[in-house]
Amino acid sequence: MLELYHGGPGANSLKALLPLHEKGLEYRSHLLNLIEFEQHEPWFVKINPNGQVPVLVHDGRVITESTVINEYVDECFAAVPLRPAEPFGRAQMRVWTKFVDEYFCPALSFLGWHAMIRTAVSGLSKEEFEAKIARIPLKEQQDKWRESAAQVWTPAQLDDWRRKVRVSIQRMDKGMQGPWMLGQQFTLADVSLFSMLIGMPQRYADIVNEKDSPKVVDWYARMMERPAVKAVLAIPRPAAQTLAARQAQSGAR
Amino acid sequence: MLELYHGGPGANSLKALLPLHEKGLEYRSHLLNLIEFEQHEPWFVKINPNGQVPVLVHDGRVITESTVINEYVDECFAAVPLRPAEPFGRAQMRVWTKFVDEYFCPALSFLGWHAMIRTAVSGLSKEEFEAKIARIPLKEQQDKWRESAAQVWTPAQLDDWRRKVRVSIQRMDKGMQGPWMLGQQFTLADVSLFSMLIGMPQRYADIVNEKDSPKVVDWYARMMERPAVKAVLAIPRPAAQTLAARQAQSGAR
Repeated sequence: MLELYHGGPGANSLKALLPLHEKGLEYRSHLLNLIEFEQHEPWFVKINPNGQVPVLVHDGRVITESTVINEYVDECFAAVPLRPAEPFGRAQMRVWTKFVDEYFCPALSFLGWHAMIRTAVSGLSKEEFEAKIARIPLKEQQDKWRESAAQVWTPAQLDDWRRKVRVSIQRMDKGMQGPWMLGQQFTLADVSLFSMLIGMPQRYADIVNEKDSPKVVDWYARMMERPAVKAVLAIPRPAAQTLAARQAQSGAR
Repeated sequence: MLELYHGGPGANSLKALLPLHEKGLEYRSHLLNLIEFEQHEPWFVKINPNGQVPVLVHDGRVITESTVINEYVDECFAAVPLRPAEPFGRAQMRVWTKFVDEYFCPALSFLGWHAMIRTAVSGLSKEEFEAKIARIPLKEQQDKWRESAAQVWTPAQLDDWRRKVRVSIQRMDKGMQGPWMLGQQFTLADVSLFSMLIGMPQRYADIVNEKDSPKVVDWYARMMERPAVKAVLAIPRPAAQTLAARQAQSGAR
């Protein structure tokens, strides 16, 4: 049996959801509320000591890291291949998936947290916030969340992350080899990149647009037409509790 | 034909050299002098626009990124397999190679540059140094080199990188599943980790030692007995020109 622990159709969770749907695999879905920090709950940290989603459980064995999960799923369920058959194509694919993990995703992630953290921590007292931070298993994540909440990042840092996002999109546009990133075959390179691109034509219209990145815009439209993409994007994403709801809950304690 | 552009047996170049020797493959070796910034020479940037080693050229096709190169080589030359045969083992292997690339290597790399940069830039005028920096294709690398040379990093930053190195070694020690990282089979996980570990029992004796990381120490000794490891470590590493040699060269111009 396949089980996926995920946060809904965004970022790395989206990345792991897509191949399951592309391949038409049955899986049990466990949706975690990331804005409520559910991935740091003790029950989940028992499954992934890093306290991060997505996690795939296949016949009881735990596989972490979305990029690793996707190659694993493609190796186990090869009927609809999502990797090139020959080694050079696979190497090209892995340069893209690695680029997403090491460059594109960290830049987007910092910008995303910077924008979202106010919502995520609104209505929490300092003690409640620190209690949530203390549960995060990875020190790097604790630092990032604490710094985000304190809004300590300088305009120069924010500009540099935006620069990296722009560099990523330009590299994609220049590297597009056909209807899909590597040419005629839809691969995990498309999956990884799309999991970052989702929503960007709206949120980053100055970077992803017809003039500056026409190939990316066309590719994005093709992605949105894929049945698996439509199915995954229809999965509801949990929202943060509103401040009013938190206060009501708090008052009810 | 196989050709490898590399900087000798250290870090990511060591990582790409080892599988070629483990598999007994013939290759043409192109040794670059990284301390003299040879990887940023225009002739090399034509081969890898990122200006980074190692680079594998296989029958004229260029493959970059040491981790990608190693999976490619294992796919093309499978006679001596360096990856587990079944998907779950491969996933475990990839979690380690990814951990090296995203966590362990960056921490070691910052500490290494901090220690080495004085030698690398000794005897260069400000103009000569800036001319070298200007040739670096990646802005992130430019920033890192300039900051290293200025020794701007705080003791707290240096301490945090040392903490990450310690975390990496502890994770390795805890995760060791047999004589090799994944158990009975020697894999690319061992290759990636060893390419970071080389020399650490001497340079980081407070972290890699019998008391704190006994399994890592034993594993390191086993690694050093492998014929391929011995062969690769015998490859000479280019040294920085001495200050006296630079001045003599400069005077001769």
